[in-house]
Amino acid sequence: MLVAVHQGPAKGDLTVSIVRAAAAGAELLLFPEMATTGYHIGADIPRLAEPADGATALAVAGLAREHGIAVAYGYPERDGDAVFNAVQLIGHGGDRLANYRKTHLFGALDRDWFTPGEHAVVQVELRGIRVGLLICYDVEFPELVRAHALAGTDLLLTPTALMTPYEVVADTLVPARAYESQLYLAYANHTGRERELRYCGRSCVIAPTGQVLARAGEDEQLLLADVDVDLLRASRAANTHLADRRPELYRDLVTPEGVTA
Amino acid sequence: MLVAVHQGPAKGDLTVSIVRAAAAGAELLLFPEMATTGYHIGADIPRLAEPADGATALAVAGLAREHGIAVAYGYPERDGDAVFNAVQLIGHGGDRLANYRKTHLFGALDRDWFTPGEHAVVQVELRGIRVGLLICYDVEFPELVRAHALAGTDLLLTPTALMTPYEVVADTLVPARAYESQLYLAYANHTGRERELRYCGRSCVIAPTGQVLARAGEDEQLLLADVDVDLLRASRAANTHLADRRPELYRDLVTPEGVTA
Repeated sequence: MLVAVHQGPAKGDLTVSIVRAAAAGAELLLFPEMATTGYHIGADIPRLAEPADGATALAVAGLAREHGIAVAYGYPERDGDAVFNAVQLIGHGGDRLANYRKTHLFGALDRDWFTPGEHAVVQVELRGIRVGLLICYDVEFPELVRAHALAGTDLLLTPTALMTPYEVVADTLVPARAYESQLYLAYANHTGRERELRYCGRSCVIAPTGQVLARAGEDEQLLLADVDVDLLRASRAANTHLADRRPELYRDLVTPEGVTA
Repeated sequence: MLVAVHQGPAKGDLTVSIVRAAAAGAELLLFPEMATTGYHIGADIPRLAEPADGATALAVAGLAREHGIAVAYGYPERDGDAVFNAVQLIGHGGDRLANYRKTHLFGALDRDWFTPGEHAVVQVELRGIRVGLLICYDVEFPELVRAHALAGTDLLLTPTALMTPYEVVADTLVPARAYESQLYLAYANHTGRERELRYCGRSCVIAPTGQVLARAGEDEQLLLADVDVDLLRASRAANTHLADRRPELYRDLVTPEGVTA
């Protein structure tokens, strides 16, 4: 399955990339975190937040159906009084397939506005590939990516809003996740400035072998990469990390105490 | 604390590096996995395996005391009928401070000869720094490094025998571990060939900021890097991954089932 990753300014129209990605033969297009509104927008977050089946979702669904491409996009989700930092995956037919709410909020930028999600693993089968969803800071926690791998995720989509000086996340942590947990990982970031933040781009698609299949620089770009279930299977047979785990030794990871100052 | 990392042929005399590291002012020297015997030595493993307080330990203790430097070295440990792939840390005074037995065995190379260890986290306080021990394949499992971080490890020593084409481990996974779990990580590898294996070197010392403090190429080298508790504290205050974990979402990581083929 050919997958496209949109890297562009924090707030932009989704249409151009949907048209381009579909024309390039992509079956799935990933946008960054809060791609529909911008990320660092303060009090505009509660104002612009919409339900998962709101007007923006309907518009994206229309584009997905029209161009025959699945679309995952970050957006602020309203559910009653609560606002979540969410990503929604809409299928080729315009159906809402999956919605994930960021579980690991990043500092005041997130905590000032969002309620944390409570479901770690959200997945859906898309044309024979099990697609999982995380958002930005989530992917820095190896536990979450591991939970996806154990639940069978083949391709992990991670919209982000990664700013300088955190390039280490895009360049080092994201490839490490794909290799150590044996899955494909697509990571979509913003470009340019938003208030005092400067986004570092460096969106990428990583294979379970650790190979960087596609990597953007700092500027706008549409990445394309092939997600190949046969290669995934071969990589898991050669790199047996999931089978070699020893869960009985990891119990301290799930106790509430334990952090040493 | 100045830390030295020895990178050299799979089987070599430890003395030269101990003298050199001490002369350079290092307080701790790390050798690779099975540094006293070589790693890929087949039936010589059970023949050369010694108790943790055997002749080799006594010899290393003598050198440590003579040169006033702590030494961590990989060796095959005999305990009754069992043989473990172990690393021992000997203090400045020649005292045996800690001994760790590899818990995650790597393929037939390990499994043909070694019994797996059963203690995930082995630590000791060394001149104000909490030092932890892992071996090679262990460090590819983020769970183990996380367990160390939660138990308060400041500096994780990891002897290895990493062969080509697994450079991704040294270059990507090891730096990711240091950053995601906020600790110093020293990684010591072999050089050259041993039977059909070609070791890839690339030993390193990584700061909790993800910064590569020292990195070897493929050839013999003695790395030196400073482990600074103040920097560690500052990095943990800035990068709050340990405090931001949500253990209640990680329960699937400790259940015995869960791996999808």
